[in-house]
Amino acid sequence: MVYLLFSGGKDSSLAALILKKLGYDVKLITVNFGVIDSYKLAEETAKILGFEHRVEYLDKSILEEGVSLILKHGYPAEGINYIHKKVLETLADKYKVLADGIRRDDKVPKLTYSEIQSLEMRKNIQYISPLLGFGHKTIKDLINRFFIIEEIKSGTKITSDYEAEIRSYMKMIGEDPNKYFPEHKQSRVVGVRNWEV
Amino acid sequence: MVYLLFSGGKDSSLAALILKKLGYDVKLITVNFGVIDSYKLAEETAKILGFEHRVEYLDKSILEEGVSLILKHGYPAEGINYIHKKVLETLADKYKVLADGIRRDDKVPKLTYSEIQSLEMRKNIQYISPLLGFGHKTIKDLINRFFIIEEIKSGTKITSDYEAEIRSYMKMIGEDPNKYFPEHKQSRVVGVRNWEV
Repeated sequence: MVYLLFSGGKDSSLAALILKKLGYDVKLITVNFGVIDSYKLAEETAKILGFEHRVEYLDKSILEEGVSLILKHGYPAEGINYIHKKVLETLADKYKVLADGIRRDDKVPKLTYSEIQSLEMRKNIQYISPLLGFGHKTIKDLINRFFIIEEIKSGTKITSDYEAEIRSYMKMIGEDPNKYFPEHKQSRVVGVRNWEV
Repeated sequence: MVYLLFSGGKDSSLAALILKKLGYDVKLITVNFGVIDSYKLAEETAKILGFEHRVEYLDKSILEEGVSLILKHGYPAEGINYIHKKVLETLADKYKVLADGIRRDDKVPKLTYSEIQSLEMRKNIQYISPLLGFGHKTIKDLINRFFIIEEIKSGTKITSDYEAEIRSYMKMIGEDPNKYFPEHKQSRVVGVRNWEV
């Protein structure tokens, strides 16, 4: 059994596929801090992929502290890293094998080697990032091999990553999220193919 | 098509399995520097796993420089890293998708993130380390799930990793390899199971 942090995006979908192909019973988890129901897209995608999915409601203070780090630094890296680490720390008390969709070329969120060692040893868990050894081009090839992708036009659909709730929370406290987050295209998995390769 | 550096050991066998499950046509490559025919075990294991295998004969000067680094430092890390990088550089001129069995918890051989970026960009290749996101315990579980393993008693069988030829070459030039390499158990894959999970 492995519990995979799942945003409904291409990367965590590919991570789910790899773990399944390795014989794991994969359960998808989307975290939520009670700001908005940003887990809906992940829920839909989990259904398309055929995996069990659950929402884990975590303490809003994790998100608040993450946002305050983003405001302090003026860019999201530290804040998002903080949130991801806190999420892993919290879930590690409950789940013995935890995974995420972090890729080799991701800058954030990313744990250092020492942080990973520390997490696994303190909590006596296994932490798996199945995409960590794959570069940008390889992941693009694999995603095209296994998934049908649709681009999400900015603002038309709420994605299920940390950014969605961070943005909402920032607006609530009168901050403009566009000052902190670069414009970037998002996409979602709308179908699978070659699943049985 | 992916070309995987293959020693016949558990890690590169698991890397081969993952790549195959991801739909790649996997070819196994064992390098040889002309010191001894250390590729025999890899050849046998490739047959057990059902993969195509070939031996790539590379310039002996790569091994010689690696050994001189080991002698200079008094331990094998730099020398083995040097050899692995040179092997990747050389094969990258010939193969467009290269892989190896490096694990998250391996100290050597290991490329830094910048070295990986540089290799991929200069040579216009993809470099994949499928095990990089998996820790020691997870890899142990996966190996037990898919392979039947036999321990190799020290010195009874020549393994197909760099160490075998390094040790032979050291003896040829009058050095004692046991002064530089720690005693460690080696093992080989003698069968597969649950292949179709």
